[in-house]
Amino acid sequence: MNTEGEIQIRPATAADHVAIWDILQPIIREGETFALPQEMGAEEAIGHWCGGDHDTYVALIGAEILGTFYIRPNQMGGGSHISNAGYATAPTARGRGIARTMCGYSLELARQQGYRAMQFNFVVSTNHRAVALWESYGFEVLTRLSEAFLHPMLGYVDALVMFREL
Amino acid sequence: MNTEGEIQIRPATAADHVAIWDILQPIIREGETFALPQEMGAEEAIGHWCGGDHDTYVALIGAEILGTFYIRPNQMGGGSHISNAGYATAPTARGRGIARTMCGYSLELARQQGYRAMQFNFVVSTNHRAVALWESYGFEVLTRLSEAFLHPMLGYVDALVMFREL
Repeated sequence: MNTEGEIQIRPATAADHVAIWDILQPIIREGETFALPQEMGAEEAIGHWCGGDHDTYVALIGAEILGTFYIRPNQMGGGSHISNAGYATAPTARGRGIARTMCGYSLELARQQGYRAMQFNFVVSTNHRAVALWESYGFEVLTRLSEAFLHPMLGYVDALVMFREL
Repeated sequence: MNTEGEIQIRPATAADHVAIWDILQPIIREGETFALPQEMGAEEAIGHWCGGDHDTYVALIGAEILGTFYIRPNQMGGGSHISNAGYATAPTARGRGIARTMCGYSLELARQQGYRAMQFNFVVSTNHRAVALWESYGFEVLTRLSEAFLHPMLGYVDALVMFREL
């Protein structure tokens, strides 16, 4: 069994884009986690995940990229002291501590970069694994957005705004 | 005195960009309302206000553009049935019902476009005029984001997540 100790995290480079897309594609196609179009193509997805003001990282076990996350300011200007982050773990690599390691790392990174808090704007409430992980890291549910997410299997479900100070 | 009946609203065109910037610039420079950099330039501001997935309108009295707003999906994919909007009134034209007219118009437009709700993600809590206006239109404060906005005069103040069904 792999333990968390074997997971390495480093900044993403353009050479990682194919591996990042391999992680994102099944999650986007499934449509149960991210508020992204299920039909979104590779170029647009990479532009979203790695572009703009996103500071993007990959998580590896050995040489294999099994997770990726970004952090960014949640708002511009007067709102830029609060961070936002997005995480994706390869569906085939679940249960190996990758998401947990990325969450802990991203909080430390956000703290080092001078952010005062981290906010998730739109956590699909039926993503119980993620909600439980973030709660274990001290995130609180500030509000439920009623029926804010159209889940491909479950219909309209709530989304959560989650927040924690750093 | 001008009454609300004299206010016209129409879709914005590229020819309106100078007038829109004339409205946005003092508000952005003041830094008390939008989570946008106070030093933001015209091109970037217009790209933000009129670009991407923003559906942008102007409000006029006679031939003079005195207000502008956009509506857009607040999230992509499974979150795209909830709208988001941003409003700006020329500081010199306050008190003439322009913001109120734009708010009512945008709600009707969002309804017509098939959105199920409207959400404001980041209303600066000290923008009392806007908060009162939106509450008068049925928006509820779902949560306060503690000290989420760095106000240039007041320091850290809360921001509000506001929501109403359509």
